[in-house]
Amino acid sequence: MFKAEIEEVGLLKDSMKTISDLISEGLFQLTEDGIQLVAADPAMVGLVDFTLKEEVFETYEINEETKVGLNIENLYSILRRANSGDTITLSVDEDTSKFKIEMVNNSTRDFSLPILNLSEDDIPSVGDLDQFTFNTDLDTSVLEGAIKDAMVVSDAVTITADGDSLNISAEGDQSGVDFTVESGAEGVHEMSGSDAKSMFSLDYLSKMIGAKKLADTVTVKLGQDFPMRMEFTQPDQVDLNFVLAPRIEED
Amino acid sequence: MFKAEIEEVGLLKDSMKTISDLISEGLFQLTEDGIQLVAADPAMVGLVDFTLKEEVFETYEINEETKVGLNIENLYSILRRANSGDTITLSVDEDTSKFKIEMVNNSTRDFSLPILNLSEDDIPSVGDLDQFTFNTDLDTSVLEGAIKDAMVVSDAVTITADGDSLNISAEGDQSGVDFTVESGAEGVHEMSGSDAKSMFSLDYLSKMIGAKKLADTVTVKLGQDFPMRMEFTQPDQVDLNFVLAPRIEED
Amino acid sequence: MFKAEIEEVGLLKDSMKTISDLISEGLFQLTEDGIQLVAADPAMVGLVDFTLKEEVFETYEINEETKVGLNIENLYSILRRANSGDTITLSVDEDTSKFKIEMVNNSTRDFSLPILNLSEDDIPSVGDLDQFTFNTDLDTSVLEGAIKDAMVVSDAVTITADGDSLNISAEGDQSGVDFTVESGAEGVHEMSGSDAKSMFSLDYLSKMIGAKKLADTVTVKLGQDFPMRMEFTQPDQVDLNFVLAPRIEED
Repeated sequence: MFKAEIEEVGLLKDSMKTISDLISEGLFQLTEDGIQLVAADPAMVGLVDFTLKEEVFETYEINEETKVGLNIENLYSILRRANSGDTITLSVDEDTSKFKIEMVNNSTRDFSLPILNLSEDDIPSVGDLDQFTFNTDLDTSVLEGAIKDAMVVSDAVTITADGDSLNISAEGDQSGVDFTVESGAEGVHEMSGSDAKSMFSLDYLSKMIGAKKLADTVTVKLGQDFPMRMEFTQPDQVDLNFVLAPRIEED
Repeated sequence: MFKAEIEEVGLLKDSMKTISDLISEGLFQLTEDGIQLVAADPAMVGLVDFTLKEEVFETYEINEETKVGLNIENLYSILRRANSGDTITLSVDEDTSKFKIEMVNNSTRDFSLPILNLSEDDIPSVGDLDQFTFNTDLDTSVLEGAIKDAMVVSDAVTITADGDSLNISAEGDQSGVDFTVESGAEGVHEMSGSDAKSMFSLDYLSKMIGAKKLADTVTVKLGQDFPMRMEFTQPDQVDLNFVLAPRIEED
Repeated sequence: MFKAEIEEVGLLKDSMKTISDLISEGLFQLTEDGIQLVAADPAMVGLVDFTLKEEVFETYEINEETKVGLNIENLYSILRRANSGDTITLSVDEDTSKFKIEMVNNSTRDFSLPILNLSEDDIPSVGDLDQFTFNTDLDTSVLEGAIKDAMVVSDAVTITADGDSLNISAEGDQSGVDFTVESGAEGVHEMSGSDAKSMFSLDYLSKMIGAKKLADTVTVKLGQDFPMRMEFTQPDQVDLNFVLAPRIEED
């Protein structure tokens, strides 16, 4: 039995919009602590690690941990129909194998979505990525600006860091862009660590930065030809973290 | 001779926009009571019954009833160019067989449109559909919400009613949506009659609900596997009514 | 050596947007008086004559006149990324043969664009077109309205003038539009000369009228089956002039 009621419609909508841009279906884990989704995109380049915490719900009833496979694009199509002011009740109907989404305001609207039979093998391991050498907390708008700048000239970006600065640059058909922020600059809240340098796909980055709606700041962790981790957090409400594999430069 | 001057530019634009989404050309009847259009879409599934009343015009001169065939999409393309504040004069130039649209503000802009040779047989009979068993007056926003919800999961909707409630539901690839309003609920102004149940195309319904710009409430009439009638009315100004044939469920 | 700093980001963006709609690459002339571009579209139907004056820059350093060939679409893609409040520094890096665009605000963003090897033969002669017989200063909104009206019915427009009025008309598949402004009407600041009549492409006109963002009024010069000249000017800041070849009517 699972039944959870949420008034923070925006949190749910914004999270699912960003995730559905990356991943079409996933196995949601319904636990006592909240709703969790860990899933990788089909190319295994980007990984989503999402938790909507029990505290954010008005009521939250669960009697045993359950996993439900859902089409995330369809889920988002339904959630888009929610208006602010609606109360959304999520529940699992085991008899019909449906995931139910009820939206109540002046009227009651009942949506249902089939529960998909997804393999648990599909849940990737988030792992302990202890090879991050660099860490920074930035305004999401700073990172978003650099990503959009880079998209003007290329489809990939090189991110280079040392303990005192973060550099984001891209080279395309002879055009280029280069952006640097120093530790202590406006919009940079924390910067520490040592040298890091990796190249990433702008297509994935531009989708992941969609999580800006959830948090004003983002924590970025980097290494040497190593994945990038981005953490968008609202304490006691939502964690939306991404791990993005590097592009290995061909010489 | 026909010449009519209107300042309510929005009424004319909004009506033609909605009608042009359904029907590409039609035979307008210019009468002493106003401008009328009765036309069905090529598939004969949806019927439009439109009257722009003589009272809405600043001046209205006609010496004999006339029928003019017009391309409604082209008419709307021209009307889109009208600004609020313009005075529009509609007239028929019999010599050149043109329908004239003059827009006057600081400047004068004269548009003309060819009068098409459409057969009068093309005017469908609106008929007396006396087999409606159910009738309700709703806020257009309530009906529009239910239509948009249903479009998320399917391309057809089942509308079921009894004297006390109206249910709109849709089933698609295993997903579903179900919406009910009771008599007396917010946004429901009148509900009467007995059982009714029919299935309708969401493509047509979503185009017809475009008439929401003309009226805040809509009258809906239903029967048993029977057409649906929707009436959007501004008293003494405009009537835009639709009749939509049901989809017959295949068992 | 060329280095110029500008805070009027909008002027630069708006100019390049309009020009890039017409012309994909051009040879910019960097002179003591400012930045100039004279270029024709590949079909040689429309000619752009653009000057961004030295006075509009915060600082402007040049030691010898230089010509730099640039892809204007790519230049505009980069300029789009500038925000109001940014200071933009344009410079030429002769060593790497790059045109540099630096945007400084809280952060510094460095863009570079390759300098193209364009032939000077590609600079068309603006010439002294002394066969204009008619001249008017209009609000750009008046000209824009007439162009958009005409686009509803056709892809070409006939502009007819005498000393006292300007007529813009278009005929398409039996539909038509006709617009006249008289000397002295609202939005007409000056009108003089004698008879003029020519036909022009609406595709080009609709792109050229994009320069409305630069100036509230436009000077239009016409002749008899002769090119049209349009001048958008902000004194001491920017001149964006167009010459558009007439379409010769086939009888």
